[in-house]
Amino acid sequence: MSARGAFLRRTVPAIQIYGANTGVGKTVVSTLLAKAMKTAYWPAKDVVYLKPVSTGPESDRDDRYVRRYAGIRTKTLFQFDDPVSPHIAARKNGFGAPSDDLVCDSVSKFMHKVAPEKGAIIVETAGGVLSPGPSGTPQADIFRPLRLPVVLVGDHRLGGIATTLSAAESLTLRGYDLVAVVLPTGDLGNHDYLRTSFHKQWRIPVYDIPLISDFDRSVVELRVPQGSESVQLDVKLNAYYKAISKSHMPDLVKNIWSNHSRYLHDLDEMPARAAESIWHPFTQHKDRNAAELLPLDSAHGDFFQVYRPSPKPEDKSDSSQAVAKVVPPEPNNSSLQSAFDGSASWWTQGLGHGNRDLALAAAYAAGRYGHVMFAGAVHEPALTLATRLIHLMDSDKKSRLRKVFFTDDGSTGIEVGIKMALKAASVRYGWDGSSTDIGIIGLKGSYHGDTIGAMDCSEPSTYNKKVEWYRGRGYWFDYPQVKMKKGKWTVEAPAGMEDDFGSLQHYESLQEVFDLNNRDASVYERYITEVLKRLIQDEGLKFGALVMEPVLLGAGGMIMVDPLFQQTLARVIRTSPILASMSEDPPSETDSATKSPLDWTGLPVVFDEVFTGMYRLGRFSSSSFLNTQADISVHAKLLTGGLLPLCVTLASQSIFDAFLSDEKSDALLHGHSYTAHAVGCHVANVSMTKFTDLHRSENWFRAALDWAPTAGAESGRPWQHATHVWSMWSKKFVADLSNKECVEGVVAIGSVLAITLVDESGSGYNSNAAIKLRDALLERGPSNRLGIHSRVLGNVFYLMGSLTSTSHTLNEVESAVAQHIDPTTGSHKTDVDIGDDQ
Amino acid sequence: MSARGAFLRRTVPAIQIYGANTGVGKTVVSTLLAKAMKTAYWPAKDVVYLKPVSTGPESDRDDRYVRRYAGIRTKTLFQFDDPVSPHIAARKNGFGAPSDDLVCDSVSKFMHKVAPEKGAIIVETAGGVLSPGPSGTPQADIFRPLRLPVVLVGDHRLGGIATTLSAAESLTLRGYDLVAVVLPTGDLGNHDYLRTSFHKQWRIPVYDIPLISDFDRSVVELRVPQGSESVQLDVKLNAYYKAISKSHMPDLVKNIWSNHSRYLHDLDEMPARAAESIWHPFTQHKDRNAAELLPLDSAHGDFFQVYRPSPKPEDKSDSSQAVAKVVPPEPNNSSLQSAFDGSASWWTQGLGHGNRDLALAAAYAAGRYGHVMFAGAVHEPALTLATRLIHLMDSDKKSRLRKVFFTDDGSTGIEVGIKMALKAASVRYGWDGSSTDIGIIGLKGSYHGDTIGAMDCSEPSTYNKKVEWYRGRGYWFDYPQVKMKKGKWTVEAPAGMEDDFGSLQHYESLQEVFDLNNRDASVYERYITEVLKRLIQDEGLKFGALVMEPVLLGAGGMIMVDPLFQQTLARVIRTSPILASMSEDPPSETDSATKSPLDWTGLPVVFDEVFTGMYRLGRFSSSSFLNTQADISVHAKLLTGGLLPLCVTLASQSIFDAFLSDEKSDALLHGHSYTAHAVGCHVANVSMTKFTDLHRSENWFRAALDWAPTAGAESGRPWQHATHVWSMWSKKFVADLSNKECVEGVVAIGSVLAITLVDESGSGYNSNAAIKLRDALLERGPSNRLGIHSRVLGNVFYLMGSLTSTSHTLNEVESAVAQHIDPTTGSHKTDVDIGDDQ
Repeated sequence: MSARGAFLRRTVPAIQIYGANTGVGKTVVSTLLAKAMKTAYWPAKDVVYLKPVSTGPESDRDDRYVRRYAGIRTKTLFQFDDPVSPHIAARKNGFGAPSDDLVCDSVSKFMHKVAPEKGAIIVETAGGVLSPGPSGTPQADIFRPLRLPVVLVGDHRLGGIATTLSAAESLTLRGYDLVAVVLPTGDLGNHDYLRTSFHKQWRIPVYDIPLISDFDRSVVELRVPQGSESVQLDVKLNAYYKAISKSHMPDLVKNIWSNHSRYLHDLDEMPARAAESIWHPFTQHKDRNAAELLPLDSAHGDFFQVYRPSPKPEDKSDSSQAVAKVVPPEPNNSSLQSAFDGSASWWTQGLGHGNRDLALAAAYAAGRYGHVMFAGAVHEPALTLATRLIHLMDSDKKSRLRKVFFTDDGSTGIEVGIKMALKAASVRYGWDGSSTDIGIIGLKGSYHGDTIGAMDCSEPSTYNKKVEWYRGRGYWFDYPQVKMKKGKWTVEAPAGMEDDFGSLQHYESLQEVFDLNNRDASVYERYITEVLKRLIQDEGLKFGALVMEPVLLGAGGMIMVDPLFQQTLARVIRTSPILASMSEDPPSETDSATKSPLDWTGLPVVFDEVFTGMYRLGRFSSSSFLNTQADISVHAKLLTGGLLPLCVTLASQSIFDAFLSDEKSDALLHGHSYTAHAVGCHVANVSMTKFTDLHRSENWFRAALDWAPTAGAESGRPWQHATHVWSMWSKKFVADLSNKECVEGVVAIGSVLAITLVDESGSGYNSNAAIKLRDALLERGPSNRLGIHSRVLGNVFYLMGSLTSTSHTLNEVESAVAQHIDPTTGSHKTDVDIGDDQ
Repeated sequence: MSARGAFLRRTVPAIQIYGANTGVGKTVVSTLLAKAMKTAYWPAKDVVYLKPVSTGPESDRDDRYVRRYAGIRTKTLFQFDDPVSPHIAARKNGFGAPSDDLVCDSVSKFMHKVAPEKGAIIVETAGGVLSPGPSGTPQADIFRPLRLPVVLVGDHRLGGIATTLSAAESLTLRGYDLVAVVLPTGDLGNHDYLRTSFHKQWRIPVYDIPLISDFDRSVVELRVPQGSESVQLDVKLNAYYKAISKSHMPDLVKNIWSNHSRYLHDLDEMPARAAESIWHPFTQHKDRNAAELLPLDSAHGDFFQVYRPSPKPEDKSDSSQAVAKVVPPEPNNSSLQSAFDGSASWWTQGLGHGNRDLALAAAYAAGRYGHVMFAGAVHEPALTLATRLIHLMDSDKKSRLRKVFFTDDGSTGIEVGIKMALKAASVRYGWDGSSTDIGIIGLKGSYHGDTIGAMDCSEPSTYNKKVEWYRGRGYWFDYPQVKMKKGKWTVEAPAGMEDDFGSLQHYESLQEVFDLNNRDASVYERYITEVLKRLIQDEGLKFGALVMEPVLLGAGGMIMVDPLFQQTLARVIRTSPILASMSEDPPSETDSATKSPLDWTGLPVVFDEVFTGMYRLGRFSSSSFLNTQADISVHAKLLTGGLLPLCVTLASQSIFDAFLSDEKSDALLHGHSYTAHAVGCHVANVSMTKFTDLHRSENWFRAALDWAPTAGAESGRPWQHATHVWSMWSKKFVADLSNKECVEGVVAIGSVLAITLVDESGSGYNSNAAIKLRDALLERGPSNRLGIHSRVLGNVFYLMGSLTSTSHTLNEVESAVAQHIDPTTGSHKTDVDIGDDQ
């Protein structure tokens, strides 16, 4: 659980020194910088130097050198005596390498611990930007959670232009901010070139310093006393650092300070400026306090870095000028706080924020294509994605889906799915689309997006009731819900429908609920048939599609629908003879006997897997829980691993065929400018590879094992993915929650956890029941402790990990939730100290 | 006009050798590879070595070395005698540096010229991946248009892990494909580390070779005859290359070959596989020939690299196996062809395909954030973009736009704009949105997107007539159109409405048409008022918004609407007392006297600038042509420079205020998962900076000067942006076109050129008039010549440059169009030979 200890203090700028290569003079620059900071600009002279990882004999350690010549506090955290690369040294030392998290957390803890009231911290890396750390991970990746501003020491040697630029690119694509480049003066002209180049592309300055060897010759030589070589060198170095820190460093120090104060200033102003210029989604802006807006400085893995505004320096008479001038440090602790991204950033996250591989994938596609025309054309990333999705959806070899249509987001993908279904139905039933009013069949509480066509697929609700052009077009079934209540999984009929569905049913495990072959669907079948008869035969309504989110209705309140009901609904709609009476053509047209088994019958079944698909519920397709094959299937959100908007609507051959005609106007005349944009497609392809790797991960295996219905059920199948229903949230935690008095019921599946809280005031979208819990989890003490960011849906409090969240992280989140949901029973230690306990 | 000569031949794999740093042994690897290719695998032993740029005395040239030890043809293209970096050597030589285009084109031409029937070409770069070429541009950028597969020579020295990885990242973010890494064996363990690392992330192999120095000692020493040092060395080197090319190179050669044949195989299969799995936008798939699908291998600047499938090798009995085995070379010329992206990839392109800076910007935001939650939160890229857009839209200090709402594409942005407008109107006029049927006012031929809400803003047409849920909601005005006809700019009344609008009007310049203050709007005003009276007072209809694309209706057929008509329509709708009669509240509620001048009156004016904004027409906002301030304004496409989907809907304060209430349900309950995704926002910010730089570019200045209405009109204002209407297409070309018999009229503004062709069969979306021209321009001769890819709209043939298209490129396109639109008058040389004329 790294990323929690990011360091940002108003009075203590921190800088990380990276080198464009080994041997470019990082330690020289650190020493100069430390010495200059210590003397140049402010009364509090406390500068701390930190070397996280060092190899080689202790006597040669960089921290000693810096301490000697800069006269400051220094520290090395991980020392390996072997003078080789840390990843080799760590392998040799017999204790194994410290993990990346340990190294990064240690740096963070140390910084918080030693941070002076006013001063600065310099963290020097080892080798080049991507030199391996102890575990073998490149250093720039290990320290990324801290994301300290970088001073890059450039390479003045032959080839140094190329290595310096590439090093800067490697830092940039990891989301680092470069503050400056420092380059020893050489005779190759690297400095001139790089100054222009960095100004142009990074808008940062390049500073030069004389080489020690040059300085040696030109200035000090005559003053060196006779003595041993080491004494001579010592005197030379002292003279060098004293002179150069005064002559060459002040601008850099000033720049670091002004950058630091500008950065804080921008973060301070961010909420107010955002409130002025941004119209936020799903937000009632009346009386909204700008301070409620969370400024997200960055994110990594499962965590946001949230900026906590603090009292500003007293001299705030003219904040616009404060940007330019060097602001004196102020004694306060304003800082970044790590917060678990508990809504998976609106359900999108799969592979962690700031994922280097996705960043590089995005850059590759951008560099190879940019965006290229997709009408009448094809490119490799789109083709690979289409082929792969069709294949992945067909893991049981029963899929009907053969064609992939690209759009930009779930809402547009649903619009396409609806257009596909309605057209197919119109052709089948002989309707003239322009003259009839065709509806869809869906479920109450469904949500499919915010464009008008997608909205019209949902029943009237708070979301849409005041939207002028909305009109729900269809019929929405009520249905039994699944929840764990007081330790038991239950299937509960909707209010007022117990007569139809029977009383509450209990199950030993969630798996039993999903064991559809062993459950009796006859009651559901009768109920659904009766409703269809009334709607179609009695009322003469026409329907063009069945549209459902399989298993879990997201925005509707993380409602788990009884999968047996959904399966039955699809089956009845596909097989009931009632549907044929919608036809305006002779019945032979709808005779399913003439069709291939992959053809749709009754109505096209549209699965909205935008939220539920792509392993969100633990499986690639949520349709597999229903053992029901869609005719049309919509996928987005996790599709790009959580990086970019992209959506695909998959369709069967028979749906596709409904658009074939000699008329261009019969085609699906839909398209967005960035249809199948190469960047999104390529990132999606990389994500798919990573998703399928997760299948075999220890993390998922352990979670699945926790939820195995009977002991040993998974025995003999290690490292294969589970066939039962499982969740990344622990089974015991879910059961414990369900027994709490304030909890009405709990649902957990895949990475989703949803807690329905008892709400005396009545539930619904306008309920405030879960808000207290949400707020309590975010505001949990000092700024350097872990917060949990979450979103609520009425009286439903939910949490969602990414697909790569570790059990360690989730357990810690569980502890926090357990404590705050019912403070009297809280026995877990949830506030893990970071800054004070070392 | 680079990028045209990309090289891909079935029988001649080409490889570019890049080095992770200077001095890592590129020439050694080139020599080994050449020698191995020459002898190892196939009968045609013709391997050619090319050094594009070389510095240092001629006697030391790498090509001589390679020729000597590999025994193959070699060539150096640009030789500078000074043994310094090319950018310094070129500066010193007195003739100036060859441009990047010249260097890259020369390589391409040379490769096409010397390519053997069967063989291979090795292109060796100088220094590291990002070492500057003669112009100072990093080499990897100079050669990017060729995008040859790369063999990266890794750095075996201390620090070499970091430099090798960073070099690979720099190549990747430029869209290069790495084939393999070759690394001299060292004692630092770099090889072990890099083998794992490259396999994991790039899925490519790492090969090792012994250092010459090691080989020297261990194998040859005893066999070296006594003689001069140079003779000794020569013998050693001969022995080294002979031995190592046999012992260490065969796998690499095999890998290069199988990679090459797999690559071709994938391209060959691409159209058929795409036809099988992809449902293309706006495409009638019936009888579509897969061969019509253009496989786009990559793109750079203004150009696609289109793959031209050619007869496959005869042995195609089992194409799936062909992937794995080494396919023998076949004598044919299948290849990539450069094609000008004449639709700007559906109007999105602004800064060129494969733009390195946008790729790095995307990677930075991906690395810093990934995607982060935007509801209740804010991040720097989104805030900067919002602030900047509000500022840029306010260049005349009269803008009403104060709030920015983010969505994913133009269609969703329009849905938001409509929701905003209808809500504001409903509040103002006291309507209950759920009970009335509110329409919009628009223009015939408008297009706003393909989601149902956006569709409903357009009149019934081919696009929507067969979409079941579409119903046009509103009234669409007919209007006078602007075109150049037979050398004169004309404003022409729509058919049957000459009585209303008066007869055809002629203008000396386009600027005169847009000089709205000097034109008489009274006829338009009367006409519009009468229509409104009929609709609102007589028929009792209700309208909630005026929705228009300013100046140019895109999908409707690149129709230039008389800007005076649009201006007048907005003014009448804002000021006419007729609108007040829609109110169901007492009239005092709609009394505009109580409002601020920035409040909307009459109806909210929604400008759809998705296509027309962001400098597409030469100005940041197309509303400035109408001197009319929108209440709501939608922007997408060029917003990200042409890389990614992103859309913003800007609104005025008074529109925003209509949603303020104590009820959450009164808020704009709209949002997409990736709302304000950081990658898109940051790329947009970088794009905005580049756009505003273009303002001061020589390219735009020259174009504007060409269109200056009177000589000297711009005098005294050099390097300031034009205040008159101008186009990147040359004025003379447009006038010439308009005089052609087959041309009905021409429009040119900004980067858009639209030619309405005379179509005897009647115009419209189903017309085929322009298709012949389109096809002729794409299929223009041998595969190594320039094609022009375009899209047509009925009988309208249009072309669109990016904002960075050079006049050189556009002039060449103009010549081709002039020749093909009317072959008898063609006097230009349009087929520029590349492969044969050197």
